[in-house]
Amino acid sequence: MTSQELFGQIGAKRSFLCVGLDTDLKKVPPHLLGDEDPLFAFNRAIIDATAPFCVAYKPNLAFYEAAGLKGWGALVKTVRYLRENYPEQFIIADAKRGDIGNTSQMYARVFFQEMDFDAVTLSPYMGSDTAEPFYAYAGKWAVLLALTSNASAQDFETLRLENGERLYERVLKSSMHWGTEDNTMYVVGATRAEELERVRVIVPDHFLLVPGVGAQGGSLEEVAKFGMNSRCGLLVNSSRGIIYASSGRDFAEAAATAARELQGQMAALLAGRGM
Amino acid sequence: MTSQELFGQIGAKRSFLCVGLDTDLKKVPPHLLGDEDPLFAFNRAIIDATAPFCVAYKPNLAFYEAAGLKGWGALVKTVRYLRENYPEQFIIADAKRGDIGNTSQMYARVFFQEMDFDAVTLSPYMGSDTAEPFYAYAGKWAVLLALTSNASAQDFETLRLENGERLYERVLKSSMHWGTEDNTMYVVGATRAEELERVRVIVPDHFLLVPGVGAQGGSLEEVAKFGMNSRCGLLVNSSRGIIYASSGRDFAEAAATAARELQGQMAALLAGRGM
Repeated sequence: MTSQELFGQIGAKRSFLCVGLDTDLKKVPPHLLGDEDPLFAFNRAIIDATAPFCVAYKPNLAFYEAAGLKGWGALVKTVRYLRENYPEQFIIADAKRGDIGNTSQMYARVFFQEMDFDAVTLSPYMGSDTAEPFYAYAGKWAVLLALTSNASAQDFETLRLENGERLYERVLKSSMHWGTEDNTMYVVGATRAEELERVRVIVPDHFLLVPGVGAQGGSLEEVAKFGMNSRCGLLVNSSRGIIYASSGRDFAEAAATAARELQGQMAALLAGRGM
Repeated sequence: MTSQELFGQIGAKRSFLCVGLDTDLKKVPPHLLGDEDPLFAFNRAIIDATAPFCVAYKPNLAFYEAAGLKGWGALVKTVRYLRENYPEQFIIADAKRGDIGNTSQMYARVFFQEMDFDAVTLSPYMGSDTAEPFYAYAGKWAVLLALTSNASAQDFETLRLENGERLYERVLKSSMHWGTEDNTMYVVGATRAEELERVRVIVPDHFLLVPGVGAQGGSLEEVAKFGMNSRCGLLVNSSRGIIYASSGRDFAEAAATAARELQGQMAALLAGRGM
């Protein structure tokens, strides 16, 4: 998917919501546990309920790997289900991989060729080798960690370098030349909305994937205020706040309600910027 | 496994070799492709042939994920085979994961509880949250990337901070307080042997996992010279140089020969240090 197509979806849906599929067998409503594949049954119901209100889905791979072979199977089925039924959705593998060239090549093949994700999250620590093989796939994206929403982001990401830059700023400045605005996004946490302003100075035109709204305490208004560019340029992720909005038989309806509420706020924010 | 037990193995085997199981279906000898599970058949033969000469195995997860469900199954079987037949071997999941707390918890459960690996490699970019959940498992290890062997390690890992330290030095100094010498190792590439000296000043007693000997051009002598401590403190990994030493029917014998040769050099280096 090109950035133009993604922006087209945002405009059509009046939403820049990404639904995080952190699907945990321990949190799947009890009535689904008798299903042949409870993880997939849960995801399918969540997707059917929320698809009108979002433009992207982000399965978090840890949750599927934790379920072993069946988890991996559920992940494959989820991506296929999205592709077949909601081809307009942007699908992100939240994998946070990062390895040397020959290994990154294998991961690129897994996520882009075997499973047909649109994008993969990557940790930049090891440098450009990490991302390069992902750029070989036309229409696919690398989503690089820049400034994350967790407390210990300050351990290294915000360290000052000898020229006064912070590490995450250098990550942005270096990596923006690895790819283009049509194949590179950055993860910037919503819990650090004021720093989005600094990020936008460096990468004014890139899409940002923003986790941390909701459960982690970030504010959507702040994110839009500091992070939105003239093409929107944001995908804001919510996971637990949507998919676990209810733990009962009404989980899908509750997820739809939570997603619709965020979509409504997003529509207003887009309108406020004349989009 | 405790560091004392690991050192006991190194002393008994006269080896600090780790065999990297980067098992690629495209490189498995043709006569194995008819097997029900070629990846596992290959691994089992490699393990049986090399176990006398090494103390650790390191499956690289990308290679198994690239083979989809069957790959994941082969990985599970490989770990189980090692546990049942070679319980003295230290098993490292080369996964380079790194995520926020609740996700890291899932990964810790996958690798330590579901699959019974001894250790997992982690990328430190997101800080201590990344590693903490792994320390909750007694006898298990976090192996943190410090200074890797790839060319683009210089993009960020060797950047100078405002106090003159390099980023990887700060990673060592901060993270050495997250765990202990009994649950934390560091990845330091063999292609930067001279920098091992600087690493040893900061973490004199930790085990180092050293990739890059062989295919990537690192020298075992240099690694031992600058990286060995009084308890050895090294696991030196070789992947392609051992497992793909031959692509024919004699692949296992060729792997044994390559592993035995490295073990012989390691025995001499240990003896030279009075171990």
